[in-house]
Amino acid sequence: MSSSPGRRGAGEHPACVQRGTGALAAPGGERSPRVVIVGGGFGGLEAAKGLGKLPVEVTLLDRRNYFLFQPLLYQVATGGLSPADIAMPLRRILRRQANTRVLMEEVTDIDPQRRLVVGARAAYPYDTLIVAAGSTLTYFGREAWRRHAPGLKSVEEALEIRNRLLRAFEEAERESDPQRRRAWMSFVVVGGGPTGVELAGALGEIARDTLRGDFRSIRPEEARIFLVELAPRVLPSFPEDLSEAAELSLIRLGVRPLTGVRVAEIDEEGVELERNGRRERLCARTVIWAAGVEAHPLARVLHERTGAPLDRAGRVVVEPDCSLPGYPEIFVIGDLARCPDGRGGALPALAPVAMQQGRYVAHVIASRLQNRCVRPFRFRDRGMLATIGREHAVGCFGRLRVKGRLAWLLWLFVHLAYLIGFQNRVLVLIQWAFHYFSYHRGARIITQ
Amino acid sequence: MSSSPGRRGAGEHPACVQRGTGALAAPGGERSPRVVIVGGGFGGLEAAKGLGKLPVEVTLLDRRNYFLFQPLLYQVATGGLSPADIAMPLRRILRRQANTRVLMEEVTDIDPQRRLVVGARAAYPYDTLIVAAGSTLTYFGREAWRRHAPGLKSVEEALEIRNRLLRAFEEAERESDPQRRRAWMSFVVVGGGPTGVELAGALGEIARDTLRGDFRSIRPEEARIFLVELAPRVLPSFPEDLSEAAELSLIRLGVRPLTGVRVAEIDEEGVELERNGRRERLCARTVIWAAGVEAHPLARVLHERTGAPLDRAGRVVVEPDCSLPGYPEIFVIGDLARCPDGRGGALPALAPVAMQQGRYVAHVIASRLQNRCVRPFRFRDRGMLATIGREHAVGCFGRLRVKGRLAWLLWLFVHLAYLIGFQNRVLVLIQWAFHYFSYHRGARIITQ
Repeated sequence: MSSSPGRRGAGEHPACVQRGTGALAAPGGERSPRVVIVGGGFGGLEAAKGLGKLPVEVTLLDRRNYFLFQPLLYQVATGGLSPADIAMPLRRILRRQANTRVLMEEVTDIDPQRRLVVGARAAYPYDTLIVAAGSTLTYFGREAWRRHAPGLKSVEEALEIRNRLLRAFEEAERESDPQRRRAWMSFVVVGGGPTGVELAGALGEIARDTLRGDFRSIRPEEARIFLVELAPRVLPSFPEDLSEAAELSLIRLGVRPLTGVRVAEIDEEGVELERNGRRERLCARTVIWAAGVEAHPLARVLHERTGAPLDRAGRVVVEPDCSLPGYPEIFVIGDLARCPDGRGGALPALAPVAMQQGRYVAHVIASRLQNRCVRPFRFRDRGMLATIGREHAVGCFGRLRVKGRLAWLLWLFVHLAYLIGFQNRVLVLIQWAFHYFSYHRGARIITQ
Repeated sequence: MSSSPGRRGAGEHPACVQRGTGALAAPGGERSPRVVIVGGGFGGLEAAKGLGKLPVEVTLLDRRNYFLFQPLLYQVATGGLSPADIAMPLRRILRRQANTRVLMEEVTDIDPQRRLVVGARAAYPYDTLIVAAGSTLTYFGREAWRRHAPGLKSVEEALEIRNRLLRAFEEAERESDPQRRRAWMSFVVVGGGPTGVELAGALGEIARDTLRGDFRSIRPEEARIFLVELAPRVLPSFPEDLSEAAELSLIRLGVRPLTGVRVAEIDEEGVELERNGRRERLCARTVIWAAGVEAHPLARVLHERTGAPLDRAGRVVVEPDCSLPGYPEIFVIGDLARCPDGRGGALPALAPVAMQQGRYVAHVIASRLQNRCVRPFRFRDRGMLATIGREHAVGCFGRLRVKGRLAWLLWLFVHLAYLIGFQNRVLVLIQWAFHYFSYHRGARIITQ
């Protein structure tokens, strides 16, 4: 699993970008240099792990006490898994790293002049700082939509979506008016990227299989599930033939993909859709937002404090070694950073990018301690996968493309392998097995 | 598992208590009689199951969409299990019963004259009514305590307790003042019945084993855990020697039982304890309430509407066939009912009582349909068990008493056997096995 991007690509990047090793030396030179990491997601956690054996003092700050395996969060939202199955306490993961301290803290500000991270509870001095605060949902300025269309970013939001999905069927069961019942039985997923496709596929499965026979007044399999995507096809970041395969799988699950369609309005009663300038109303009591994320507000803080430029998505533009221009002691990684992809564009906001950057930055810090040179960060693309329902997936790995059951097995294997904790892996595997053979989903409870 | 209490005890209760079979016949005699069940706990669910094959129309109302296996709720509160592991959707359990309809509804009133159950959303006419609404926490009039000392009754409360326990250690880790740190490291469980003992035991285990090595500034094993009980011994409903064994096991886990002690005050900073008239303050930031439950408010509604007497705990005093005096078509079962134990006392508020009553009432209804006589309800006591930590339990079954590892294995087996759903059983067993061998608890996440 481990790659050392710093040692690769000797041909392409002959320039050594190592600068300012002094940034690591502590004033006075007596105590170990202090590395503060903000955010315990894919990037921050890998960075922390990479620093475990170095003579540095690591502090990992996160407002949660756990690492969340985001790629499976849609399964929590659809009642397939419990939050604890895909979450692991950060201090548990890092317990054997004697140089590492984990603290629950909401970071609000960064002071690069005094080298301080300011949290809601205290301030934390650093010699080197790694900011890996990730991304948050964006409603593109339509804040009122947030209330009607929860997104899938945190455990709490996933449970909110689960409650809404399950409650919609409960409401439909007791509703006698056919039109209102139809509105409760209509679901709109906004955004046809991997998250939206996986959510819609799971929803199709719930309606068709999981809930079948559980109700008396309604037939859950008659639920209408719409997947709205502005681009002309779902999974726009995948090759065209895979988008087509995904679309077919979705249709087979009863999902109706609406591509080339813009969401003009969202309210309590449903959505207003716009295609080719024509508007149309869709009555649906349950709307889920999978349309967009933007950089965490700390990106703006960094911009204001250091002058580092932001891109259109609000991400901090970083140097080839993931540090901030003029601040070699501050690294920004993961969804928060705009990192060049070497082809004129930027790397996508994906877990593998964040993980490799985390490992890379730990490697840069190790090299600086030894006054060694490092090469710029280079992302090794290992491909991407999206699953649709219980037996289908699509994936591309460079030029290799897979779809159908093989891709689904691959998806299963990859996600289990990356899940942290042996117990979690076994629990998730067993639940998937149950789910596969019985069509049942275990976590179908409505909580507050 | 199934017992038919109605057919037993021929010697003791020669009187046939069957009355008013007309109460079941629907007016007009065309449609099936309507049976409404309020509450999908142990009692209501067993009643619903017992009615599955009768020519009646069953409606089960519960404000939750799931049945909760309460006896394991303390494991959710202590991070050992996830809520979905011990909860099962009611409509899933009853899906094959074509005559049964499950609706999420909060019942607010009952109109025995018009034979209507009034809910927050609609009214439900009945020919026969089974009220099994259970119990709620009581703070004996000290409502202000509720905020400082959450109890263990619902999934939400269990998660609240889990959050507080985990957060207390997080706060202690970052607190530099020794006195305040000590307050964060002090835990008080109020009430030494089975729930309190199981909670305190699990807490002892968490502090001693689960969290060991996860922190840098504190040693979790130095946490102080107090179990406060007004009676002179813990588990006062158990035989004395078992109380003693339980107390020893608790002490071995680092729990300090304070028996013969009254809680005089609870606030944000801790508790005030009173023993022999002397008051003493105990600084503890985490207080858990396991001291008392009282009947659900529907007991009072029934009292006001039918004149049925209530006992001191607010339970409805029922006839020997679990019906209300003068209202043979209304049954009250489980924690809501005060049912004579045949020795001048009342049956305890335990799951086995509620389950047997549920089955009995279904049997009464079946008998009435056939104009058959039924004998009064008679509880078959199968004994009780309480577990303390990872290897100890105490139990008594009539004259047989067990303790130590054997009792613990028995406890394990019984709880797995009664858990609903094969998937839940496997998941819980696996988590217990992990927990046993690794000392780790999987659900250690703090959510909102």
